Amino acid sequence: MRFGIVAFPSKTLQDKANSYRMRYDTRYSHIPPHVTLKPVFELDEKDFDQLHKQITEVANKHEPFEMKVSRVGTFHPVNNVVYFKIERSDKINALHDELNDGTLHRDEDYAFVPHITIGQDMSDDELFDVFERLKMTSFDYNETIDRFHLCYQLENGSWTVAETYHLTSKGLRADDC
Amino acid sequence: MRFGIVAFPSKTLQDKANSYRMRYDTRYSHIPPHVTLKPVFELDEKDFDQLHKQITEVANKHEPFEMKVSRVGTFHPVNNVVYFKIERSDKINALHDELNDGTLHRDEDYAFVPHITIGQDMSDDELFDVFERLKMTSFDYNETIDRFHLCYQLENGSWTVAETYHLTSKGLRADDC
Repeated sequence: MRFGIVAFPSKTLQDKANSYRMRYDTRYSHIPPHVTLKPVFELDEKDFDQLHKQITEVANKHEPFEMKVSRVGTFHPVNNVVYFKIERSDKINALHDELNDGTLHRDEDYAFVPHITIGQDMSDDELFDVFERLKMTSFDYNETIDRFHLCYQLENGSWTVAETYHLTSKGLRADDC
Repeated sequence: MRFGIVAFPSKTLQDKANSYRMRYDTRYSHIPPHVTLKPVFELDEKDFDQLHKQITEVANKHEPFEMKVSRVGTFHPVNNVVYFKIERSDKINALHDELNDGTLHRDEDYAFVPHITIGQDMSDDELFDVFERLKMTSFDYNETIDRFHLCYQLENGSWTVAETYHLTSKGLRADDC
């Protein structure tokens, strides 16, 4: 089976992303707007319990983090994707890295750039048109991500949530020292 | 916000349901194939934590149950829906009832008939055509449902999973007596 790990932003930000995705994202109907924390990977269904155990351990070691979106970005010319750029965050990077460590490791095609896709598989002309327009627009979303989801892909390309994981670490507090 | 509670069947059964839904279900792209345990209900977002607590308590009191699908049914003439009929199960009925009890209670428009929709919003002609053909077909799916999901609806009508709940009760064993 094909699995992936994602975080869903707030309903408000999902609705905003969908207002673009409905026009520009060929995978609009496959999954709600999301931040990919671990790209698609293959795993035999019999290994699901072990995977679940490993992901639970990772979730327990990380704390909820703030996610800030204020502008769009593009992966052009590598990929004709336009996305909401997530501002630099050591916490989301650390979570991504640990979801790709040890036996969870898979070679990833690209460096991790946290984002919420709002358009993909666009022609060059369409991408330039959309990106030029949106790069002048400022957005202002600040939200807390306190959970993420393990999903699996169906034959039609859409994704179903298998499990929800909570970021339950409280972090290091002064009285821990 | 609009919430709903569903259980997803196995990938195999979801793929089978989607092979019909892609042609006959107007809400094919809104959510993967599912069993509705609690129909859509309105709740203020500020009451989410209380809702989560109540649903967790229900989940902890119920045990995983077997779900058997062997034939199709229809809600015609009340609704032009064709569905995979879930065979009579006291456990799924009890879970539904308790997700609609106390402060979770909402008046439901219809009696609870556990099912997986494979077609809806069909014309009478289309419904008769599909149902007459499929009612002669036998299906053979036996699976264990060990979790369900709380979802919320986005502005475009699609659903995002907020939380996964596990049916964690071990049931009444001989040595409990």
